Amino acid sequence: MPVGLKAPKNLLPIAGIRLAAIHCGIKTDGKSRDLVLIEFNQAASCAAVFTSNRFCAAPVVVAKEHLDHNQPPRLLLINSGNANAGTGAYGYRHAKESCRSVAEHYALETNQVLPFSTGVIAARLPIEKIVTSIPELLSQLDENAWLEAATGIMTTDTLPKAVSHKVTIDGRTISITGIAKGSGMIRPDMATMLAFVATDAVVDQALLQEYLRRAVEESFNAITIDGDTSTNDACLLVASGESGVSVSADNDIFQHAINSVFKQLAQSIIRDAEGATKFVEIQVTGAVSVADAKEVAYTVAHSPLVKTALFASDPNWGRILAAVGRARIETINVDMVSLYLGEICLLRNGLPDRDYKEELGQTEMDKKEITITIDLGLGKSGATVWTSDLSYDYVRINAEYRS
Amino acid sequence: MPVGLKAPKNLLPIAGIRLAAIHCGIKTDGKSRDLVLIEFNQAASCAAVFTSNRFCAAPVVVAKEHLDHNQPPRLLLINSGNANAGTGAYGYRHAKESCRSVAEHYALETNQVLPFSTGVIAARLPIEKIVTSIPELLSQLDENAWLEAATGIMTTDTLPKAVSHKVTIDGRTISITGIAKGSGMIRPDMATMLAFVATDAVVDQALLQEYLRRAVEESFNAITIDGDTSTNDACLLVASGESGVSVSADNDIFQHAINSVFKQLAQSIIRDAEGATKFVEIQVTGAVSVADAKEVAYTVAHSPLVKTALFASDPNWGRILAAVGRARIETINVDMVSLYLGEICLLRNGLPDRDYKEELGQTEMDKKEITITIDLGLGKSGATVWTSDLSYDYVRINAEYRS
Repeated sequence: MPVGLKAPKNLLPIAGIRLAAIHCGIKTDGKSRDLVLIEFNQAASCAAVFTSNRFCAAPVVVAKEHLDHNQPPRLLLINSGNANAGTGAYGYRHAKESCRSVAEHYALETNQVLPFSTGVIAARLPIEKIVTSIPELLSQLDENAWLEAATGIMTTDTLPKAVSHKVTIDGRTISITGIAKGSGMIRPDMATMLAFVATDAVVDQALLQEYLRRAVEESFNAITIDGDTSTNDACLLVASGESGVSVSADNDIFQHAINSVFKQLAQSIIRDAEGATKFVEIQVTGAVSVADAKEVAYTVAHSPLVKTALFASDPNWGRILAAVGRARIETINVDMVSLYLGEICLLRNGLPDRDYKEELGQTEMDKKEITITIDLGLGKSGATVWTSDLSYDYVRINAEYRS
Repeated sequence: MPVGLKAPKNLLPIAGIRLAAIHCGIKTDGKSRDLVLIEFNQAASCAAVFTSNRFCAAPVVVAKEHLDHNQPPRLLLINSGNANAGTGAYGYRHAKESCRSVAEHYALETNQVLPFSTGVIAARLPIEKIVTSIPELLSQLDENAWLEAATGIMTTDTLPKAVSHKVTIDGRTISITGIAKGSGMIRPDMATMLAFVATDAVVDQALLQEYLRRAVEESFNAITIDGDTSTNDACLLVASGESGVSVSADNDIFQHAINSVFKQLAQSIIRDAEGATKFVEIQVTGAVSVADAKEVAYTVAHSPLVKTALFASDPNWGRILAAVGRARIETINVDMVSLYLGEICLLRNGLPDRDYKEELGQTEMDKKEITITIDLGLGKSGATVWTSDLSYDYVRINAEYRS
């Protein structure tokens, strides 16, 4: 059961962007959408970030190659149900071929199509099913198919994930709509996290890449379920320019709006995490640097003992403190650390707070949404990370998937 | 159920070392041994390593202080059932007082006694119970009480852990006997890993520290259950010298014998790990450096997805490969990596081996003891790490402990 997540509604179309999502036969239920096409207008700019995992799946390798060409991408072809990962030379050829088959219909270059795959690894992509379905896919393209596309990229997600946002820049409105999928960083044999976000603002490609980088830092690079990154993770930001509203460098309003969409998408992945019963925000403050703050936040977020305590609704500050104490940074001083659950102070300067009673911590821990704040007391930097708990269902889902 | 672990037997006494273990009332069952004293002869040298966690418990702080004095330690006082961690100024005072109460009986300095505690955290040490039990403890001192001592330091261990080893140096025999406890790096609210090893060899203190450091590197620093280090971990090596056999620097026979005892003790902790159903050895070869090899081995050992696959006996090489790919080292090249389960080659140079069939991997995975070998194909360094799987019982033990 997802934690505080509902099916998306009121998604805004983005002028210049059309989408289609059909069932082509990869998903074995014989009906769920498993092939998605996203088409941009000619003027669109496109920015992308990919998994840092050194074992990239074939579509990631091909998408990066295609982006290295000077011709701007015009189409994204995404299949779900098969990750085309661990498939060697076949995988590469199939990813290329799927792009070529789309490009031919548009009389574009193959490198103007970017491929994405998510699903089972180490199984060959059923390329024939994809190629023969392209005409049907093209016939369905529609500005209002964001929800269908969000559904079409799902694998083990229990709900589609999508969000829209409107913002006014220089008195004129721009729209942003995005979709994402993922419910573990690597799902059992499944890969993984994908996000596609579009806006009708006019943004130069290099600037767009910078807006994307910053947005990802505070969203997809600030969530963790099990610490495992995948071979297929990808995140794209497209600007169609159809609104005519230009965004130049360092526009805080635009950055904030983009961040907001990315953050909501990233959080929706955590809310739908494998076996999650809690949505947990970990705030680290008083750090010497953002990198230090993130290291501490991730160490706490990845600790199996903290995660099982969260599952048990156990206000077990000893486990949190021990995780802070083993973070890979040198400057931590026990006597400076304070710890909060919600507004409740558990530890002040390394010792149990005078007013703390177990009942107070218990009340916070019983909530579905929990905020842990760790003040290192050393500096002025901070970072926030979102995570889930570690439940029986996490083990069940990951242990029983193939059996 | 521990994996391939039996109750220790045939433990060798070490001349010059006497032990006692009694119930003083810390453990709530009213009978289990919970207070242990280890006494050395005057000529003994003593080396120690402690937790790298910045949140040290009071006994660790006091033990380090006492070792900084010039007088050599003569006694170790260990209580189980209470970790004296997260106890602030009280904790420090109680650790000091317990040492003083032992020292008085011997007319020694307080700093010649080292305190160790393991058990529940954030609860005050019942210092009166300890102090009043010292006379009884002294009356029980015996060279043949190693098994009683191994039992007395247990907390949630299901079996005592102890091992003896004899080795011939220059035609003369020396003995080594050691005990250890621990079944998670941090047990729920419990802390944690302790090991005490003694030999009758003559070894200078500075040399002994170096022998200890190397032994720990290949034993206690090469095991992991959940990646969580504790506030109380400590590991001691004592040389009584009573055999009259002198060991100088870089004696490979002695180092090997010490390593063997430490490795068996460390592995016995993994075999008794929380909820463990598998004993897993992860060998990384072909690395550029030992540090790189260890980073890869630990990343795989800590991956919840690898650990749940091990629990499920699932030969899921995709999860292992994805964990290798996110290790924090730069040089990994997918096309050079080979992967083995036992003797079975799953991947050769990044691709499924020609002769690999799922049944072959399944046969290996069905075993209780599993070896994963990862050849990075880059250099000549390697490292080995031992770990356990992630089971329902791990979640149950860690989630339900306080409820």
